[in-house]
Amino acid sequence: MSKAPSNPGPDEFELISRLTAKLPTGDSVVVGAGDDCAVIDAGVPGKWQLHKTDAVVEGVHFTKDADPQQVGHKALGRALSDIAAMAGTPRWATVTLGLPDGFDAETVESIYDGMAALAKRHGVSLVGGEMVANPERLFIGVSLVGEVARDKCLLRSGANVGDGVWVTGELGGSIAGHHLEFTPRLAEARWLAAHFLPSAMIDLSDGLAGDLGHLLTAANVGVELLESALPIRREARLRAKSPLLAALTDGEDYELCFTLGQGQAVAMLDRFKNKFPDTPLRCVGKIVDRPGLKIRQKSGVMEIATRGHVHFQ
Amino acid sequence: MSKAPSNPGPDEFELISRLTAKLPTGDSVVVGAGDDCAVIDAGVPGKWQLHKTDAVVEGVHFTKDADPQQVGHKALGRALSDIAAMAGTPRWATVTLGLPDGFDAETVESIYDGMAALAKRHGVSLVGGEMVANPERLFIGVSLVGEVARDKCLLRSGANVGDGVWVTGELGGSIAGHHLEFTPRLAEARWLAAHFLPSAMIDLSDGLAGDLGHLLTAANVGVELLESALPIRREARLRAKSPLLAALTDGEDYELCFTLGQGQAVAMLDRFKNKFPDTPLRCVGKIVDRPGLKIRQKSGVMEIATRGHVHFQ
Repeated sequence: MSKAPSNPGPDEFELISRLTAKLPTGDSVVVGAGDDCAVIDAGVPGKWQLHKTDAVVEGVHFTKDADPQQVGHKALGRALSDIAAMAGTPRWATVTLGLPDGFDAETVESIYDGMAALAKRHGVSLVGGEMVANPERLFIGVSLVGEVARDKCLLRSGANVGDGVWVTGELGGSIAGHHLEFTPRLAEARWLAAHFLPSAMIDLSDGLAGDLGHLLTAANVGVELLESALPIRREARLRAKSPLLAALTDGEDYELCFTLGQGQAVAMLDRFKNKFPDTPLRCVGKIVDRPGLKIRQKSGVMEIATRGHVHFQ
Repeated sequence: MSKAPSNPGPDEFELISRLTAKLPTGDSVVVGAGDDCAVIDAGVPGKWQLHKTDAVVEGVHFTKDADPQQVGHKALGRALSDIAAMAGTPRWATVTLGLPDGFDAETVESIYDGMAALAKRHGVSLVGGEMVANPERLFIGVSLVGEVARDKCLLRSGANVGDGVWVTGELGGSIAGHHLEFTPRLAEARWLAAHFLPSAMIDLSDGLAGDLGHLLTAANVGVELLESALPIRREARLRAKSPLLAALTDGEDYELCFTLGQGQAVAMLDRFKNKFPDTPLRCVGKIVDRPGLKIRQKSGVMEIATRGHVHFQ
């Protein structure tokens, strides 16, 4: 399984922003391409719709011998995680399968079983599908439409200087198994939006450094992380040359990262632990005025480029 | 360009119906997988939403040397044609690009230009995109959400014995160019639904025989076509061994096929010609009681399996 192509490189980010600049949009588009989901005013009283598309590809996001039910789980789960990032509720999904030459119908059925089980658990209706040939490898595209109350939608932008930076779950080493089994943090995100309204939220798919980078850029602020506070997954601590770098850049965590005013921190953490005893939640740093991503270690302060390149001060 | 894989074979149809049977759906799903689009009650007063996903793949739906703007046009146009089939208005699209190794950024931009131009013409907002690696070939997934007045939505089911069967445009030989340049019949479909409310409608993507077959099965009826009435494209008449078979089974026509009570036929045709002088419209046959697809020729009556196999009586 090659890891690199699942996370877009600088060239892809550049291309995406060139393409995004020329996309036609209309008045109904509250937030277009660039956040975790597009936010649409579809005429539903009191609600916005969230539109998301995503795909997983054999040999890129999963190996040929991966459990097909887990592959289906991952394909839908990634899109669910993006709906979670905006505190939304996923509603309707459509699936496009690119089938390789000589595909095995049982495998395809198992992939659907994995998707259907996850869809059922989150009240998602699977309303359509399409099959095309993609001769060399399986390609699973998932499109998801969700909804969110207009006053509870959380965007990437909005982080304020002084806010704490919070992360659910654990980071790094996802490749050992988590990337096929993760639980999209839908319930946690909706609860947070309902009771504390974080100033910004994003889901962690490309690694904390990169994804937090998007959140910082959107608000033109910086962050100071505390190394000792980072929830590094056991697999990253055991296997990675640098567990810290693994936690920051491995990707595929599918956890929430959000910012919240310090005044709310204690009350929120107390109630969160009570409501979600099985979901770890840690404050990993704070938003600062000066742009950039710094991490405070025992040995000093390291500055990290938000695309994963590391520079020591 | 291999033609076969773009049209699903019997195995795929079987697999699709097995998969469709176990998809979870909810009360909000008016029509799930199986029609041109899913019909969703998303809570929009007076309207239903139409959800559609589709994809085109290099070497399957277009050649490597095809004009990239036309490829973008086709990728979005196919989904637009499905929204047209339900008399809907397309609103929001998301795009997933599977990029091959060493892809050319200019080509990708041109594909987007082609999509953006068509989107603009039909008032569609392109609200999001995702890029993944698909090492061997370009893969373009398009998901589209549209809307339709609740009392004007046209389904595949509903054809009545005695109805005329109508087809816009011309059929067959699409491969010579039409498949990259077609105009989705959105305006025609909405006008028909507003003024005459056809009993059933479908778009022609897999060939008249196959697509009309879906329409017949949905209503448990049959059809008798008149060979001399079929609008066979010049390219099919010149190039195909059997122009008739080409018109029935080539696919990629992206035209409308609908059924309408005979009492409305003359008035509809008159007003249609006046409103859409550049869109050919022909009555090609009529719905009959006995299931099956028959075609009346000078030499007699031929019975055609709706999946493209031909049996002479």
